[in-house]
Amino acid sequence: MTFEWPVRVYIEDTDLGGIVYHANYLNFMERARTEWLRNLGFNQTIFHQQGVLLVVRSLQIDYKTPAHLDDELIVSVAIEHVRKVGLILQQQVVHKLDQQLLATAKVEITCINLAGAVQPLPSSLLTAINH
Amino acid sequence: MTFEWPVRVYIEDTDLGGIVYHANYLNFMERARTEWLRNLGFNQTIFHQQGVLLVVRSLQIDYKTPAHLDDELIVSVAIEHVRKVGLILQQQVVHKLDQQLLATAKVEITCINLAGAVQPLPSSLLTAINH
Amino acid sequence: MTFEWPVRVYIEDTDLGGIVYHANYLNFMERARTEWLRNLGFNQTIFHQQGVLLVVRSLQIDYKTPAHLDDELIVSVAIEHVRKVGLILQQQVVHKLDQQLLATAKVEITCINLAGAVQPLPSSLLTAINH
Amino acid sequence: MTFEWPVRVYIEDTDLGGIVYHANYLNFMERARTEWLRNLGFNQTIFHQQGVLLVVRSLQIDYKTPAHLDDELIVSVAIEHVRKVGLILQQQVVHKLDQQLLATAKVEITCINLAGAVQPLPSSLLTAINH
Repeated sequence: MTFEWPVRVYIEDTDLGGIVYHANYLNFMERARTEWLRNLGFNQTIFHQQGVLLVVRSLQIDYKTPAHLDDELIVSVAIEHVRKVGLILQQQVVHKLDQQLLATAKVEITCINLAGAVQPLPSSLLTAINH
Repeated sequence: MTFEWPVRVYIEDTDLGGIVYHANYLNFMERARTEWLRNLGFNQTIFHQQGVLLVVRSLQIDYKTPAHLDDELIVSVAIEHVRKVGLILQQQVVHKLDQQLLATAKVEITCINLAGAVQPLPSSLLTAINH
Repeated sequence: MTFEWPVRVYIEDTDLGGIVYHANYLNFMERARTEWLRNLGFNQTIFHQQGVLLVVRSLQIDYKTPAHLDDELIVSVAIEHVRKVGLILQQQVVHKLDQQLLATAKVEITCINLAGAVQPLPSSLLTAINH
Repeated sequence: MTFEWPVRVYIEDTDLGGIVYHANYLNFMERARTEWLRNLGFNQTIFHQQGVLLVVRSLQIDYKTPAHLDDELIVSVAIEHVRKVGLILQQQVVHKLDQQLLATAKVEITCINLAGAVQPLPSSLLTAINH
């Protein structure tokens, strides 16, 4: 099952090439992951208070076609693999209008505590994911 | 008449103090101005193609209370003054939940051409504003 | 006495207008303030561990001339006024090459504790400033 | 041969976890690439005027250990592979103090023209790289 989140491109996202600066796609993808978790009933503020941090351990991104100012994008999140201490997610950024693919990414999320040590994913999250 | 635009706080917006980094409020305010223009029937991509740039000439911002991760904010835009070559806008950022005031700003917008020279605001924009 | 800090403009700082995005000047000014404190013998990591946060309470910025990719800028910090619980600073951004003025700002810094309550500036900082 | 560029961590780079936000490492790496090109005698402003854009086509980053406020980092650039229309670069981010490895990345750079079409790398750049 794929979760989708709309993102609008603003001036802050662009660079002098007139397109979205490559690092800003990572922000868009983080927003979609946050909303995917919220949609599952979780929020990162509460996770943080419980000493549960979901951090990006690695990321592979391919840029296909640039996005421009005012573009409406759809950023998706799909689970590729669930592990005891993390998740492998597939994310895509497409144009809302014509579904043109702009970027794809594989994002490895790891669960750590406030001291930075790896820990199992909360069981409540695993339950929600497997539903 | 006041235009309002919702903004959600994401991790990218926060700093190590656990609050929204002060410069990022300027992004939120720019998004609200862009949506206010869109709501009036204008978009900055088309303005840009016509050689019309609306740039921030000066800005006064007061920070009242910090915003945090996951907060839902409302960013408003109201016209304080219309000039031949620009606008003075009043903007506010409030918590959506309880309308608590987080920041207020006075933003001076100037209309320039691609060479950077000041030029009159498009008459179509003036008409839309005065409606 | 004025403290000066060099800043180089990178692609991340620019927007589709080919110039530095207006909010990013606030980042440049924060860097200069941090280095000014470091030059006085203080760093914000240690302040933070001591429960001392120096936050921007208000800011007035005037944009004179845009900066471009690869520009070398000089960002200055000068004290306009010292108060018990904060500082009023004057900051300027100029081109290194020809000293052309790009932006000026008046920045009000307030000292707070981790709970957000206003508190007096550390006496060690006041001593260093008055030297 | 490896090029190295120092980067200081400022408040703007951090997030509520007290560490550098993961997307901001891409900014640090872009700065290092820009300075590597400058060191070879090229700058992106001139490339841009000549219709030569060097863009990130794909990127694989692994996060090993987080960076914190005030940290002095060294960001390196090394060529892994030269192709007709681009480069594969290896980049690392280490702590300056103890050379601890914070992040590694493999960055695929492609040369395009202003219309977005792939084109050969400038021969002057190839010559400089092969020296």
